[in-house]
Amino acid sequence: MSVRMRGFTSYTKLADALEMVLSRVKQLEPEVVPFERALNRALAEDVISRVDLPPFDRAAVDGYAVRAADTFGATESKPVKLRVVGSVGVGSAARLEVGRGEAAKVATGAPMPRGADAVVMVEQTKTEGEHVFIFAKLPPGKNVSAKGEDVRRGEVILEKGRLLRPQEVGMLAATGNVKVKVARRPKVAILATGEELRPPGARLREGEIIDANSYSLAAAVESCGGLPRRLGMVPDDARSLRRALRKASGYDMALISGGSSVGEQDLVPDVIAELGELLFHGVAIRPGGPTAFGVVGGKPFFGLPGFPVSALVAFDMLVRPALRRMQGLPADRGYPKVRARLARKVSSTLGRMGIVRVRVREQAGELVAEPIRVAGSGILSSMTRADGFLTVPEDVEGLKEGSLVEVELYRWPM
Amino acid sequence: MSVRMRGFTSYTKLADALEMVLSRVKQLEPEVVPFERALNRALAEDVISRVDLPPFDRAAVDGYAVRAADTFGATESKPVKLRVVGSVGVGSAARLEVGRGEAAKVATGAPMPRGADAVVMVEQTKTEGEHVFIFAKLPPGKNVSAKGEDVRRGEVILEKGRLLRPQEVGMLAATGNVKVKVARRPKVAILATGEELRPPGARLREGEIIDANSYSLAAAVESCGGLPRRLGMVPDDARSLRRALRKASGYDMALISGGSSVGEQDLVPDVIAELGELLFHGVAIRPGGPTAFGVVGGKPFFGLPGFPVSALVAFDMLVRPALRRMQGLPADRGYPKVRARLARKVSSTLGRMGIVRVRVREQAGELVAEPIRVAGSGILSSMTRADGFLTVPEDVEGLKEGSLVEVELYRWPM
Repeated sequence: MSVRMRGFTSYTKLADALEMVLSRVKQLEPEVVPFERALNRALAEDVISRVDLPPFDRAAVDGYAVRAADTFGATESKPVKLRVVGSVGVGSAARLEVGRGEAAKVATGAPMPRGADAVVMVEQTKTEGEHVFIFAKLPPGKNVSAKGEDVRRGEVILEKGRLLRPQEVGMLAATGNVKVKVARRPKVAILATGEELRPPGARLREGEIIDANSYSLAAAVESCGGLPRRLGMVPDDARSLRRALRKASGYDMALISGGSSVGEQDLVPDVIAELGELLFHGVAIRPGGPTAFGVVGGKPFFGLPGFPVSALVAFDMLVRPALRRMQGLPADRGYPKVRARLARKVSSTLGRMGIVRVRVREQAGELVAEPIRVAGSGILSSMTRADGFLTVPEDVEGLKEGSLVEVELYRWPM
Repeated sequence: MSVRMRGFTSYTKLADALEMVLSRVKQLEPEVVPFERALNRALAEDVISRVDLPPFDRAAVDGYAVRAADTFGATESKPVKLRVVGSVGVGSAARLEVGRGEAAKVATGAPMPRGADAVVMVEQTKTEGEHVFIFAKLPPGKNVSAKGEDVRRGEVILEKGRLLRPQEVGMLAATGNVKVKVARRPKVAILATGEELRPPGARLREGEIIDANSYSLAAAVESCGGLPRRLGMVPDDARSLRRALRKASGYDMALISGGSSVGEQDLVPDVIAELGELLFHGVAIRPGGPTAFGVVGGKPFFGLPGFPVSALVAFDMLVRPALRRMQGLPADRGYPKVRARLARKVSSTLGRMGIVRVRVREQAGELVAEPIRVAGSGILSSMTRADGFLTVPEDVEGLKEGSLVEVELYRWPM
């Protein structure tokens, strides 16, 4: 006998739900930005060097440019004596030529004078009038940065999809790539439904609560490269929701929190189905189960749970990979992963993937993950106390104390 | 016999250099910002909840609010029958009272009606006219989120120094903390010295190179929370440098790349000493050795090497911890750390800490760190190919293939 009334008759497994989401989400068209504003953006095309790096053979240390062959046999006790024919500074062409038995003073970064093929460090020399004593034997090329040894003109230096860190910004500068094509940042509409919602800072009457989701979801969107736009709170009626969802379809993606559970006022999945296509409603994860996904006006629409923790967990599991895909990044959650030992057993509901928030600490040289005790999915402090989370597969009832687990970290440092 | 001329006569150990830097760097005064703009900022004070969370006892699931005692003995085959006295929606006060043998329909998030102390999930019920059959025994408090169970009014919810993630933004919203005190972001002046420097995109004549450091350092400052301000390129003469450094002392910190090696045109440490106090010049790290630090006008000034890789490595080792300290964060490098097995031996210069860039890959369930082969410290591509780095202590000549090492990751994901 079934005791279900209007409950979810079936949950979609996370892997299947994610596959459906990703089948409807594609990379956005790229945009061109100045390289110095490209930090943390993903490249939309391979970048090719326009120059050789270094652009000329140059001294890698302060010292004397010499012919390596002239130093053969030099030791600390038996130096070689060379005649100094001049010096080459940084920033100008080398007009000197170094012949046999000769040396030229060079500064780090100075172009190599013709004839010279090595630089002896100043620490291994001693000057005496017009001469310099060399106390070390040098192989050809020693302390010389050869033209193009770092990067060759025409070479692919950074591949499509690369996330730009400070060193890549420097590389773009050095190789003359002053404009780069990067993935456009997805604009994400954020809506919260519910008669009970009031804005942060409002005085509450009984039954009312603060809309925290609009803000935590906006921050979550921002933290994975998207541009959030809060469109505010929507009353729980079909007409208001229809209007709000139509407006949201002008963005690259929409997140609607609340109204996707199975109560009477849970209209979001119905309105998504009405205006477009509903692909699933109910995902086999806990928390985060009452999540819906569909497409309205060609744009991905997520109905996220109203509980703050469930909304953020569902965001991590399904929205993050989608936002990353839109930016040309791997369609995963993208959190750093570490191995840790479980400090306490955890139990999970069979048939649903458990997402267990944990604290992580170092103990006796290994990482220990301590599950955070929670009374329900409404406990927001379980997220603020967490360093990360682990997942318990659908077909596993729990994990034993002491087992090795993979923890995804919300953010480093802890 | 000493063969040194004007080389560094002594390098300061990294640990000592860092201690000197941190002795001169203090936390900046805080500023007040709207909570929705506080993502990735560090709290400058403890945050206290202004409310109870939840603000009232409420249903955690859709179902029927009951007196738990009435359900004792109920099973799936032998349900208890209760009379439905009404329903409570979300967003309004519960005006009902549930007496013995009675139940009230409730939606998730609805306030609990007086008398009821548990909620039976809709999936475990069956309605029949004015009655509902309950197919499960409930303990008191089941499926009820009690007022204040998440957060109590007056409780410290987030401690000083916490970096704000999406969940903390949500928590600030939910607890009425619409303005928060966060650490001010340090404003960092960035200068590049050298006659040879030309701006990105310029056509180069022999001997000239592009100023990449101003840009990679600006990005590095940004990536650890600072506000970079590029002040441009400065010619290598004492007068220009003096003027530029005086201007830079109007910022919270200054980074000057180039001109801190030991060549003739390396004036930065001298001018720092002249205008303020020079604490060290030359650090026992490789790359990054030609680094200087001092204080001008009460502000920390770093003379960083001109080579792009050396500049970024010295930034990581000394500037990052300082910028983090200024923001009230732990004064460390703050990179995620993972353990990996070394794919190839690395050698290092005795007496200097080696900073070895590595690629990291997963192989047979463990992480493997592969050192990147480099010809010199000028090789910028060694940084763009790197996922992170490991350090070889001053008193160690190298690490064997297969040893377990700690890798600091520049960024996750790889």
